[in-house]
Amino acid sequence: MKRLTFAALAGGLAGTLATKSFAAESQPSHTMPPGMEPPPGIQRIVMLVYPKMTALDLIAPQLLFASLMNVDVQLVWKDRNPVVSDTGVPIVPTQTFENVAASPTVIFVPGGTKGTFAIMNDADVLTFLQRVGPTADYVTSVCTGALVLGSAGLLRGYRATTHWVVRDVLGMLGATPVAERVVVDRNRITGAGVTAGFDFGLRMAAKLRSDDYARMLQLAYEYDPQPPFDAGSEAKAGAHIDGAVRSFYAPVVASAMEAAGIAHRRLAL
Amino acid sequence: MKRLTFAALAGGLAGTLATKSFAAESQPSHTMPPGMEPPPGIQRIVMLVYPKMTALDLIAPQLLFASLMNVDVQLVWKDRNPVVSDTGVPIVPTQTFENVAASPTVIFVPGGTKGTFAIMNDADVLTFLQRVGPTADYVTSVCTGALVLGSAGLLRGYRATTHWVVRDVLGMLGATPVAERVVVDRNRITGAGVTAGFDFGLRMAAKLRSDDYARMLQLAYEYDPQPPFDAGSEAKAGAHIDGAVRSFYAPVVASAMEAAGIAHRRLAL
Repeated sequence: MKRLTFAALAGGLAGTLATKSFAAESQPSHTMPPGMEPPPGIQRIVMLVYPKMTALDLIAPQLLFASLMNVDVQLVWKDRNPVVSDTGVPIVPTQTFENVAASPTVIFVPGGTKGTFAIMNDADVLTFLQRVGPTADYVTSVCTGALVLGSAGLLRGYRATTHWVVRDVLGMLGATPVAERVVVDRNRITGAGVTAGFDFGLRMAAKLRSDDYARMLQLAYEYDPQPPFDAGSEAKAGAHIDGAVRSFYAPVVASAMEAAGIAHRRLAL
Repeated sequence: MKRLTFAALAGGLAGTLATKSFAAESQPSHTMPPGMEPPPGIQRIVMLVYPKMTALDLIAPQLLFASLMNVDVQLVWKDRNPVVSDTGVPIVPTQTFENVAASPTVIFVPGGTKGTFAIMNDADVLTFLQRVGPTADYVTSVCTGALVLGSAGLLRGYRATTHWVVRDVLGMLGATPVAERVVVDRNRITGAGVTAGFDFGLRMAAKLRSDDYARMLQLAYEYDPQPPFDAGSEAKAGAHIDGAVRSFYAPVVASAMEAAGIAHRRLAL
């Protein structure tokens, strides 16, 4: 890293932020009144939230997006009543679909087993994604959020990834499934299951700011992972663990295929 | 792993859960009416939430706790109005302090820079933690949540960790700071900064269930971390990145020391 580049970066940050920490004073995501555009120089990050999503799919990327400074991070849904995550966390949307203007910097969809399959063919969700998605600089997801993007026709002809247990289902939606942690194909950027969200978020931070900015966030959030076990992929987990999780998820895969089948016919793929 | 042991585990899970996925059908954390105890066999996990907490500190452990089955995971605060995280995520508490009974299985405190220092000497928070904390099977935290536990006198004489930038502040609260990802000292279990929450949560899953149960959750949530950079600790990040983050966090450290100083005198340490 060139000293001058870094000094400019750090100085810029320090000047802009004065006494602020990365997270503590980020722009709250609901400061813009509904329907109002943020001022020039503020990038809009539009994150879908929905009932029975997996909150971690949303929250890890949200932390990194919100730490970029000069962003307006919106949590959007049909209305502003709390959506309860699949593990019981009530999260309040900050904007409704009709108030989200076209051409955000990022549109993002988290995953969440049952909740995902319920929205894959939801008319309001599809109308929203098909209106805003094609106008976004980046169309992104973590975990089964990719199946929602695919159901809206937004991954047709793109390489993409999702949670490993439903990865092949992407093929039914016109995408090419890829077994990687984060898949970048032009402006489609998709993360693998749940915990891939932090790796995804760092990749996005690097794209939207710089590699050094992402490294500062990695240190700020102490992302030096030390899993106490080594069972994070099918190969590493071994046949016994893998078999148990696969059988556990069998109904999830069935639901995913059913919803993807409906989307497949709707999209005339 | 013995086949019989695993078969019993997997069979038990399958029998209990039928078509449920790990997360999608976990017991919502707000199903118990205020003041009511869960039925026998249900373990209570009590998680503090508060304004300007870092949502990821809460959400990663919450996912793992809620995936243990037969748990009632509560998000507790003074009232049930949404608390807005330091990056603008509004989360609705599911219980209030006065409705949390003593002797939960776990009490947990997340971190969050400014929000943390505001509650370290908050009378309601201290009264709550000092009533329930000593009766919990496990007293736990991630990130600067440890400073809140310490301010309530709950880490006196224990080894503990917190976010690296304020690790030494633990000493002012009668604890012994330890530079490890997750520190276990008897029933005090503390995680390092922010992203340590998933490593912490897997350790807790192993303690409360079994190593194989934790491995299944690791695979289910695809925790096979692949950071795009290697800057997650001061040593790895290098002097330039480290210096920028340290200067960025200087006011945070000052706030932490000020709050810890007040707690130090209050606790007559």
